Amino acid sequence: MSIALIILAAGKGTRMESDLPKVLHRIAHAPMLWHAMRAGQTLDPARTIVVAGHEAEQVAASARDYDPETHVVIQREQLGTAHAVAQAGPELEGFDGDAIVLYGDTPFISQDTLESMARARAHHDVVVLGFEAADPGRYGRLVTEGDALLRIVEYKDATDEERAITLCNSGVVAADAQTLMALIEAVENDNAAGEYYLPDIVEIARARGLSAGVVPCAETETLGVNSRAELAGAEAAFQQSARMRLMADGVTLQAPETVYTAWDTTIGRDTEIEPNVIFGPGVTIESGARIRAFSHLEGCHVSRGAAVGPFARLRPGAELAEDTHVGNFVEIKNAYLGEGAKANHLSYLGDAEIGEGTNIGAGTITCNYDGVFKHRTTIGRGAFIGSNTMLVAPVTLGDGSMTGSGSVITEDVAPGALALGRARQVEKAGFATRLFDVLRAKKAKQTKG
Amino acid sequence: MSIALIILAAGKGTRMESDLPKVLHRIAHAPMLWHAMRAGQTLDPARTIVVAGHEAEQVAASARDYDPETHVVIQREQLGTAHAVAQAGPELEGFDGDAIVLYGDTPFISQDTLESMARARAHHDVVVLGFEAADPGRYGRLVTEGDALLRIVEYKDATDEERAITLCNSGVVAADAQTLMALIEAVENDNAAGEYYLPDIVEIARARGLSAGVVPCAETETLGVNSRAELAGAEAAFQQSARMRLMADGVTLQAPETVYTAWDTTIGRDTEIEPNVIFGPGVTIESGARIRAFSHLEGCHVSRGAAVGPFARLRPGAELAEDTHVGNFVEIKNAYLGEGAKANHLSYLGDAEIGEGTNIGAGTITCNYDGVFKHRTTIGRGAFIGSNTMLVAPVTLGDGSMTGSGSVITEDVAPGALALGRARQVEKAGFATRLFDVLRAKKAKQTKG
Amino acid sequence: MSIALIILAAGKGTRMESDLPKVLHRIAHAPMLWHAMRAGQTLDPARTIVVAGHEAEQVAASARDYDPETHVVIQREQLGTAHAVAQAGPELEGFDGDAIVLYGDTPFISQDTLESMARARAHHDVVVLGFEAADPGRYGRLVTEGDALLRIVEYKDATDEERAITLCNSGVVAADAQTLMALIEAVENDNAAGEYYLPDIVEIARARGLSAGVVPCAETETLGVNSRAELAGAEAAFQQSARMRLMADGVTLQAPETVYTAWDTTIGRDTEIEPNVIFGPGVTIESGARIRAFSHLEGCHVSRGAAVGPFARLRPGAELAEDTHVGNFVEIKNAYLGEGAKANHLSYLGDAEIGEGTNIGAGTITCNYDGVFKHRTTIGRGAFIGSNTMLVAPVTLGDGSMTGSGSVITEDVAPGALALGRARQVEKAGFATRLFDVLRAKKAKQTKG
Repeated sequence: MSIALIILAAGKGTRMESDLPKVLHRIAHAPMLWHAMRAGQTLDPARTIVVAGHEAEQVAASARDYDPETHVVIQREQLGTAHAVAQAGPELEGFDGDAIVLYGDTPFISQDTLESMARARAHHDVVVLGFEAADPGRYGRLVTEGDALLRIVEYKDATDEERAITLCNSGVVAADAQTLMALIEAVENDNAAGEYYLPDIVEIARARGLSAGVVPCAETETLGVNSRAELAGAEAAFQQSARMRLMADGVTLQAPETVYTAWDTTIGRDTEIEPNVIFGPGVTIESGARIRAFSHLEGCHVSRGAAVGPFARLRPGAELAEDTHVGNFVEIKNAYLGEGAKANHLSYLGDAEIGEGTNIGAGTITCNYDGVFKHRTTIGRGAFIGSNTMLVAPVTLGDGSMTGSGSVITEDVAPGALALGRARQVEKAGFATRLFDVLRAKKAKQTKG
Repeated sequence: MSIALIILAAGKGTRMESDLPKVLHRIAHAPMLWHAMRAGQTLDPARTIVVAGHEAEQVAASARDYDPETHVVIQREQLGTAHAVAQAGPELEGFDGDAIVLYGDTPFISQDTLESMARARAHHDVVVLGFEAADPGRYGRLVTEGDALLRIVEYKDATDEERAITLCNSGVVAADAQTLMALIEAVENDNAAGEYYLPDIVEIARARGLSAGVVPCAETETLGVNSRAELAGAEAAFQQSARMRLMADGVTLQAPETVYTAWDTTIGRDTEIEPNVIFGPGVTIESGARIRAFSHLEGCHVSRGAAVGPFARLRPGAELAEDTHVGNFVEIKNAYLGEGAKANHLSYLGDAEIGEGTNIGAGTITCNYDGVFKHRTTIGRGAFIGSNTMLVAPVTLGDGSMTGSGSVITEDVAPGALALGRARQVEKAGFATRLFDVLRAKKAKQTKG
Repeated sequence: MSIALIILAAGKGTRMESDLPKVLHRIAHAPMLWHAMRAGQTLDPARTIVVAGHEAEQVAASARDYDPETHVVIQREQLGTAHAVAQAGPELEGFDGDAIVLYGDTPFISQDTLESMARARAHHDVVVLGFEAADPGRYGRLVTEGDALLRIVEYKDATDEERAITLCNSGVVAADAQTLMALIEAVENDNAAGEYYLPDIVEIARARGLSAGVVPCAETETLGVNSRAELAGAEAAFQQSARMRLMADGVTLQAPETVYTAWDTTIGRDTEIEPNVIFGPGVTIESGARIRAFSHLEGCHVSRGAAVGPFARLRPGAELAEDTHVGNFVEIKNAYLGEGAKANHLSYLGDAEIGEGTNIGAGTITCNYDGVFKHRTTIGRGAFIGSNTMLVAPVTLGDGSMTGSGSVITEDVAPGALALGRARQVEKAGFATRLFDVLRAKKAKQTKG
């Protein structure tokens, strides 16, 4: 069956104390909105509709970054969840299939749960996702009979007996799209806040002879985010679950609590991750690599057998072939290192291609920026770049070439050649002794004076 | 009413296993003594008296670092808390107002609590701070009737009924200064340890027809520190509470558990702090800055829109204007970076002033030290410092000037000029190939031999 | 009495999802096998026998790395723990003394516990180590009478009454070596798995009129490792206990939860460790040193009063004398720094000897590698190495010598001399202005085009 996702993302999130709309706050480097959208991908939706409101343009842009096909509708006034869903109506005209309502600030609904909801639709016209609350507090309670949902009771309207119910309303709802819209249309706002509440559709549906069912899920899945502390809690939950998954897949994490992955990090079996490693978005690590402590990786690919860090910084476009070494205080950006190439100390390689087995000396820098443009450096195989070589791009060094340490390389170097650019060493005998004498005398005078 | 603070700070802290007096061990980069003094500032005290004993000179110096007006008195022998308070007597002669006794190893008494104590003084001659202990253990118990304190019972003297009391004595006491001194004078040392105990004043006060009251606070406020493990626990408590406060104020902490602030750290709204960031003392961050992972900041100021790190090291006197970038493996000390200036890679900028929009190339170093003196580097606006430029201070580079990469700049550079200091590149064809052949042959011979 | 250790280390550890045998997975940088071997050293064993199986060669090599005298026997098929112990038989022929069976994947048995077992042997022929399980689950139960062990019951064979027992079997066993082997020989494999189980020896022993006893230990000691998540848990347990021990010994850990030590780390009293410090194997820190944040140390020695970091990287062979400073983004490998020597910024010192009081300028690099061989750099006392000096080894600089910043030093420098190797600064007036104009015009054209 065709599925349409409706993702509510119009809220401001006042308690976030932020100029950024709530659903754009990030967990594991992806906006919460993306997590909700990704959860929905499970159902292979024919249409995704995001309901934006507060800072709608930013929200729309982010939604389309994730999926350019996203339909974005605007909820101009915040008149409640049913009103928000109603905005999706025009995008569902003539849509033949189910609609499911998700929330941009509820990032952890699992694939299994959404599939259970889809299956439950075979038995019920409206399916609501419930969760067993450890502390139900003021959540709406789901009054059920077997898997049938009789009604959703607001906490304030609930009897003592109903308040004892621990199965609570997550707000996630599935129904035939046209049915959903018809039910929404009947929701009224005769309550204290004057808002249109989505849960009211259950009562309306049952009054019309339709059936409602409930699918339960773990409370952790329905975790919503309303403040930065809750955002940090959601981040921690994501990280903890990602670490457990990595370890189950055969990755060694020496101190899992210190490793932070992004939503899309991929790491192969028997890779060893030391403490204090951070993965930004877009990182793929093959099997059997070693990522040492205090390394920071973003948008890069590390091949089998490569060793990274400690204190390595891989930026977007860094591509390390097998058995490469990138070591201490080395930054790589938009650069390819061929098999077995090494850059072990204090270097910056940007916009470069380094051949197989080439050794980059300590302190080497690709001077890739002239103040306006960026240029490329190309180095062949088996080359030996002396310490502190400045490679003024654009420049090409041949296979098996060599540079003297401290050289500034502004012109291409032929294969097998040595390029040098430095002054001859001269010595001034006794000069240091005399200079120190003068400086220390001056200091002594100052101190006295 | 005038208030005098008496802060007891004479103990050795044997269980700390340290040569440093206990109250000088630091929490969030400030000696515990400072935390106690800062708590007392709430009351706007007319006089602060620190009772020092063990390593009194060090303790006195630290107290005066915090507040040069501090009166320091010496307790030569450790004869109990009442004896310690008695040492403050001469400093209170003729003082008209209240005295409040705090402890140098109890850093977390809150502002609200101290204000409650001051208010409670309206109703009682002596006010004692109590706390509800989760596990009262051997703490002294407060026997109360409403908010009136009947007596303080030592655990060992307590009846079973009294031991069931969970409201315990924190040791913090407020009273009219002259009353306090008169009560202290009456305390005797007829106990096993032969010490003069401060809690005894309650019984003496009531015997004299004075009233005693109790103000309760959270147990976390009265957390004392007696070992390094407890110090680490107090540090953790401070950090946890600081993180919650930052998040409530609208700072994004991606992984709050990895961010360590100092006692005086200030961070603006919507600033984003990545994992593993450490703030030493004296740091102010404006709104909307971004502090990336693995950054270490001390004594610096970061303006709106600036981006710091990853792997940035800001040392005292670093001042970053708006929209500056300080990046990977860059250290800044006692230097000003003008609006939009950038130092993105492997640089050391010390004792320098960098103009607006200037770009500092990778590997640039201000050579600010001649072995005896430090000198300043000044760079104008819109300059372009080539990679690996050595700026031998004192030196000035004009607006819009440029240096060639690998140059050693020892003389001033005019605005708009290019300064170069490097040898011409020469190439020795085939040299690298021959050299590698020789070296590898030698290696092969060694390996064989 | 002579003791023989038998350490079972043959298992594959399928749930580790690894190509590495389970017992070679590391905790605190030592293979689990070493932890078990080290625990056994307590008993001053006359003989250590490791029973290897899966990837036996690797396991044998690791065991001999720890102790070259280790006897390694091979269990070719995995037929149960009794069968594994039986493989040690030939190595125990004629051995007069006790044998104790430990496990390569149970790294935390304490010295006290093993000594208790040795003492208990005075009263019992067979001694079994038990632990009080918080959640006994499917562990084998120890049926006891006082300290006598009546039998070990498998969970599946246990009555309800027996299942209520919380004292469980750790698998660790001690007995006279010849007795143990005789008992093992009698074990049969008439069970569902067709395996020979070591616990069966208790029943056999008692049937033969021998006595069996139990020694209890904490559950944490018998923690076994079967998956990477459990490995991470064991690492965390090790780290937590190491941190508590360091603090008890008078080391200040500002944020203990961020400090990771190795199995053999030694740190003196009153040393201060900031957050995020990692110790690899082979590190010794003397009293009163300061290890600042984001430092990574391996195989090095730091003397009294030295300051390391932030962002320091000490690699094997780094030896820092008293009052040395190694600072920001500095890497030291196989190098000695004399008393008071300083290397504060962006340097790499490898294969070097630096004299007392010598100052290494920012950006200095020892060019120790020629592509094939490594060479040494020697610098005398009180020298001043200018920023960004390249020291092309082998090279020697005398006492009190000096190098100009940006120099490439290829020849020895005499004491008290200044060595320079750089081009004279030249200035091209107005060049930068014109160049920027050209580049910006080009950019503007591109953007338009």
